[in-house]
Amino acid sequence: MKLLRVGPAGQERPVVLDDAGKLRDIGEREIDGAFLASGGVARVREALERGDLPLVGAEGLRIGAPLARPGKIVCIGLNYSDHAAESGAEVPAEPVVFMKASSTMIGPHDEVLVPRGSVKTDWEVELAVVIGQEARYLGSAEEAREVIAGYAISNDVSEREFQLERGGQWDKGKSCETFNPFGPWLVTADEVGDPQRLPLRLWVNGELRQDGDTKNMIFDVAEVVRYLSQFMVLEPGDVINTGTPAGVAMGMPGQPYLRAGDVMELEIEGLGRQRQTVGQA
Amino acid sequence: MKLLRVGPAGQERPVVLDDAGKLRDIGEREIDGAFLASGGVARVREALERGDLPLVGAEGLRIGAPLARPGKIVCIGLNYSDHAAESGAEVPAEPVVFMKASSTMIGPHDEVLVPRGSVKTDWEVELAVVIGQEARYLGSAEEAREVIAGYAISNDVSEREFQLERGGQWDKGKSCETFNPFGPWLVTADEVGDPQRLPLRLWVNGELRQDGDTKNMIFDVAEVVRYLSQFMVLEPGDVINTGTPAGVAMGMPGQPYLRAGDVMELEIEGLGRQRQTVGQA
Repeated sequence: MKLLRVGPAGQERPVVLDDAGKLRDIGEREIDGAFLASGGVARVREALERGDLPLVGAEGLRIGAPLARPGKIVCIGLNYSDHAAESGAEVPAEPVVFMKASSTMIGPHDEVLVPRGSVKTDWEVELAVVIGQEARYLGSAEEAREVIAGYAISNDVSEREFQLERGGQWDKGKSCETFNPFGPWLVTADEVGDPQRLPLRLWVNGELRQDGDTKNMIFDVAEVVRYLSQFMVLEPGDVINTGTPAGVAMGMPGQPYLRAGDVMELEIEGLGRQRQTVGQA
Repeated sequence: MKLLRVGPAGQERPVVLDDAGKLRDIGEREIDGAFLASGGVARVREALERGDLPLVGAEGLRIGAPLARPGKIVCIGLNYSDHAAESGAEVPAEPVVFMKASSTMIGPHDEVLVPRGSVKTDWEVELAVVIGQEARYLGSAEEAREVIAGYAISNDVSEREFQLERGGQWDKGKSCETFNPFGPWLVTADEVGDPQRLPLRLWVNGELRQDGDTKNMIFDVAEVVRYLSQFMVLEPGDVINTGTPAGVAMGMPGQPYLRAGDVMELEIEGLGRQRQTVGQA
């Protein structure tokens, strides 16, 4: 099932995409942690099967992030060996963990802003995991899979000078305004099936820059979720960005960082497409 | 003015401490970003002066964090030169920034849990800043001061092995459950006056371990707020932990890290006291 939120920023309305490609009101207040933890996905599925959900006139509506603002966005660094290599980093022995302010989350087609003073704004297509149940100290991959509500595309936009050259921790280059386009859909875990068989791609101005596959993750989705739960409580509605494959600007000849006017397009098989134009903050 | 929240975890009620040391209901739903951004502090002050606020029977009530869960907790590392020295780190040329999951926030006297598998759980008394207005790209220290709603005590509890020896970024050792005791009060900025003249102290089992003064910050409060606003949007209700002075377990002979049964007490002049017993997750 594909859940989404449509409408102006801050006033999105939760809907579901039906088999005929039409949007239907889900009769719930919000797609958030409370919705996910209270069996919201099952409620919507049953109502959809009963034919109870009214069509929504969606002509021209903006698509927002398919999830209300999460409690936290946790990110895994260097989780594809080809990206570790292009970054000049060792393949990590255990997951590299950092965080991104949840205020960065925007819709999948919203404008991404180059921060003031930035000359190294970069892209990162990633498979995002949405947590559906509270989790601490998970004991196995199987337990980890049970707390995953679904998946979406994240663009983990990154400012490399802020991240790597301004003294200390990566978070400084990860939390700028608009730095996490998310969506278009929250695709439920049952519909995605195996999350380690998803091609993921990113284009800039029509040129293919990233062309990876989640089968090449160093730490797979279940292991990432299990691992993180040893270090923090995962809560319903939390988002985990699971890392990016090779092909970011930092690793390319000439380092063609983003500038106002550039267009990013992102795709993960089964999870839809994003398209952002770049502006200047 | 001293705002606080009393009651069972998750059901706290917002109150104010009056000049006679009594608690009074503030007639507001919550102490959160919306309250702060909408002039809530001024509303409570006027109602208090008019004598409109009813007394609350507070006998035996738990004190919660004096702020609903923030959108983000941003932390400044190595912001006192004596702590940088004991950590074996250089004095930073610009603020070191990392994040702490906002799910770590607990009341000032709640139990702190040593995570499973931890042998290096450590303490850090810090001056916390609470943001009162949305802020981006602040131009001066004066502009920065205008967006500060108030101050509180934070214990930036840290697991040093997770933070420093487990591959990568500090956040991994900063976001464990219960790792941010906060409060007891949110003291409004006008009452605190100059935030760079506040002695701060921490005891473990009655022994004084940290004995610092905010006058020794490398980057002062206004500069920290101005600086952060260049890298992320600061929102009402966000919390900034401004760094810890020397005296943490990591820097002491024998590194006496926390164990179940230990008791931490923290104090910042004008901001009250905290007391946590340590348990095992």
